[in-house]
Amino acid sequence: MDYGTFEPSDLAALRAICGDDRVTAGADVGTDFCHDELGGAFGRPDARVRVLSTAEISAVMKHASTRRIPVTVRGSGTGLVGGAVPVRGGILLDTSGMTRILELDEANMTLTVEPGVLLTDLAKYAEEHGFLYPPDPGEKTATIGGNISTNAGGMRAVKYGVTRDYVRALEVVLADGTVATLGGKVAKNSSGYDLKDLVVGSEGTLCVVAKAVLRLLPLPKFKMSLLVPFRDLGAAIRTVPEVIRGASVPTAVEFMERDVILAAETFQGRKFPDRSADAYLLLTFDGASREEVDLAWKAAAETCLAAGAPDVFLSDTAERNESIWSARGAFLEAIKASTTEMDECDVVVPRSRVAEFVLFSREVAKRRGVRIQSFGHAGDGNLHIYVLRDDLGEAEWKERLGAAFDDLYGKARELGGQVSGEHGIGLAKKPYLAESISPEIRALMRGVKAAFDPQGILNPDKIV
Amino acid sequence: MDYGTFEPSDLAALRAICGDDRVTAGADVGTDFCHDELGGAFGRPDARVRVLSTAEISAVMKHASTRRIPVTVRGSGTGLVGGAVPVRGGILLDTSGMTRILELDEANMTLTVEPGVLLTDLAKYAEEHGFLYPPDPGEKTATIGGNISTNAGGMRAVKYGVTRDYVRALEVVLADGTVATLGGKVAKNSSGYDLKDLVVGSEGTLCVVAKAVLRLLPLPKFKMSLLVPFRDLGAAIRTVPEVIRGASVPTAVEFMERDVILAAETFQGRKFPDRSADAYLLLTFDGASREEVDLAWKAAAETCLAAGAPDVFLSDTAERNESIWSARGAFLEAIKASTTEMDECDVVVPRSRVAEFVLFSREVAKRRGVRIQSFGHAGDGNLHIYVLRDDLGEAEWKERLGAAFDDLYGKARELGGQVSGEHGIGLAKKPYLAESISPEIRALMRGVKAAFDPQGILNPDKIV
Repeated sequence: MDYGTFEPSDLAALRAICGDDRVTAGADVGTDFCHDELGGAFGRPDARVRVLSTAEISAVMKHASTRRIPVTVRGSGTGLVGGAVPVRGGILLDTSGMTRILELDEANMTLTVEPGVLLTDLAKYAEEHGFLYPPDPGEKTATIGGNISTNAGGMRAVKYGVTRDYVRALEVVLADGTVATLGGKVAKNSSGYDLKDLVVGSEGTLCVVAKAVLRLLPLPKFKMSLLVPFRDLGAAIRTVPEVIRGASVPTAVEFMERDVILAAETFQGRKFPDRSADAYLLLTFDGASREEVDLAWKAAAETCLAAGAPDVFLSDTAERNESIWSARGAFLEAIKASTTEMDECDVVVPRSRVAEFVLFSREVAKRRGVRIQSFGHAGDGNLHIYVLRDDLGEAEWKERLGAAFDDLYGKARELGGQVSGEHGIGLAKKPYLAESISPEIRALMRGVKAAFDPQGILNPDKIV
Repeated sequence: MDYGTFEPSDLAALRAICGDDRVTAGADVGTDFCHDELGGAFGRPDARVRVLSTAEISAVMKHASTRRIPVTVRGSGTGLVGGAVPVRGGILLDTSGMTRILELDEANMTLTVEPGVLLTDLAKYAEEHGFLYPPDPGEKTATIGGNISTNAGGMRAVKYGVTRDYVRALEVVLADGTVATLGGKVAKNSSGYDLKDLVVGSEGTLCVVAKAVLRLLPLPKFKMSLLVPFRDLGAAIRTVPEVIRGASVPTAVEFMERDVILAAETFQGRKFPDRSADAYLLLTFDGASREEVDLAWKAAAETCLAAGAPDVFLSDTAERNESIWSARGAFLEAIKASTTEMDECDVVVPRSRVAEFVLFSREVAKRRGVRIQSFGHAGDGNLHIYVLRDDLGEAEWKERLGAAFDDLYGKARELGGQVSGEHGIGLAKKPYLAESISPEIRALMRGVKAAFDPQGILNPDKIV
């Protein structure tokens, strides 16, 4: 695609829309806005525009489409695949200032928000009003707009599903600036093609999300965590399908290994409650009554003990919960702090193949001569596998990382898995998506993109 | 669109694919295959082809696309909007013979089925193996392929969601005969555009579903129904949002009126357990333990009594459950049997507006001089409103039906509702969908259709 060159007149037009204060250009756009959390992709926008309303987004898109200038939407920039990096320059449409919670509709149990609301603020607001917003990705400083763009999943997906399951409606701005609403405050909908769910997970390539109506649940009154040590990782993960088939679906099932726990201890400067085992499952349960939760954890505990776990540790105090979950929450940062550079593989495989995949990743580490650490959502098959650079030279790092990724994504395909469970494709995972889908599916995806964005100005070079 | 004329050579080609026995043509195609359950739309196919495999579907599509012949997919023909009626002739692709349950994967809790499996058989199979397939539309003789095509919802949507939420993967045949897989046996997926969810609910206009991998849940061990009489319908329905905001989300919340109950009694020749009230709520609860279910129904009962319900009737015996639920299951047939012809309005509105909408439908009946009966899913806002012809003459019927529908769909829009909650758009609801979406959304839907089916051979004239 040929894009228009960004001219001083474009800058003037953007300043006319948003005012001088909220438009920066050239070198005034800080380097922070040229990359995301993993840092592999880099791109400097011609201008960064901090929009504050749907009308402003619409005016920016109208101008951009007239001039055929690329537009990349950015929330908090916590992505891991370069999705929000403006690799073709143009306009960085920064929605992080759109932080209003617009409406809590208690009768319909929906929350209407702007895209820049942080997940942590959204979750807290819902809880304070007696509701649960179930999606719970580890990165709490991500914006809800970003979560919608990648269809973020998080830890509670085992029981509650992913972001897509909680988006009732979207106000979107199309590539030409038209404002449209997809979906509604309704629990069922069979009224034409499901464009709402198509936009969820489309990483800013189809339209700009300007407002979201989210579905809430009643807040569960009781919760309980169970930390279960296992002899080894295989034994731990192989127990998971049986636990999930039990009477009550757990809210979350995470696996954790000693190495990663030690990294978190070092990073946080505090002890994890148990260090006796090589591998652990961390299970949580929630429900409307203590009886319900007790029944659920007891059944799970029995299953784990029968599968050879030497013990189970109950965690029903706030303090103990906090010490376990804060360690879990620190895994990504702890691994990052333990090395010089890293890249991640966010595959999802069928639940029954998780153990096989994680054990395979250890072989890959040996075979390719790189350090690999992992943690993840054993309950839903979504793994976070980190390949660490440590003191490898640039050429060596690129080569070993590439070889390790080829192994990992190849294995995921072999096991019936998918390239990304929740982080998206962005720029970094494009080659692996391309390998995992047929030419016909790629053609359909390109057709969808062309239907929404015929000029290709929205987040160019991403996904397909 | 210009379609190829169906020639004797086309018939020969189809017979070469499927054998003589499974291809009928011209007048040999029974009238039953020219309409669906409501009978408003009629179209005779040039040939009816009973396919038995993905390979056969692929060969039929290859031929049809080469010759540009329309193809309309049909399962059991239980639709209510003309979706499976071959209004442009061509090939009726009958998948009702593809009835194999291919795999129960207990570790990943999935069931892989062919599209012709009846919902009743699927539900029974899952239950016999200790699992629940949650979607529960009233029409149990529909095929799962049909359910996927319309994103059918059913009674348990309040707690469990709709068909889309239980489709993990689809094997589809594209318009040109290419076989493709969308999704996988995975619980999360952020790997490119969500084509799987786009196909769900697309009513056979984008591709042909040849196989589905469905998600199952552990079978709840306990359930309980609660029949709650109310002074009037408004009081009944206005109680629903409060019940749902309670501690435990009910599995189903149905409303029923005396008129409809009497029609069901007449139709079934058996008594409903209570006849004291004008309106009822029927609530169900399920769970892993008796304590959990008891807690849930007691909280709901208290809410109903506080809202003025004179009593609550517990239904915990199989016999009593059967008498209530068989009446509920007979509503559609009973209403149909009470009149000469009818058409339905399957709107969905926000839960908080259900009472307003149903009461409005009574005004419409008076204003337009037609009998209107309704029942529906008070818990998820999806209403089934039937306009009955009785002894009206043809011209009068058409006019009053049109006026009543204009009123009803207009009101649904006003209340933030959608045209169809679960029956789809098909042919019958096209004008109402057209009114409810903007030209830009219509253009996007057409773009999606063109990306999948550039020749427009798949189920022509439906949806958009």
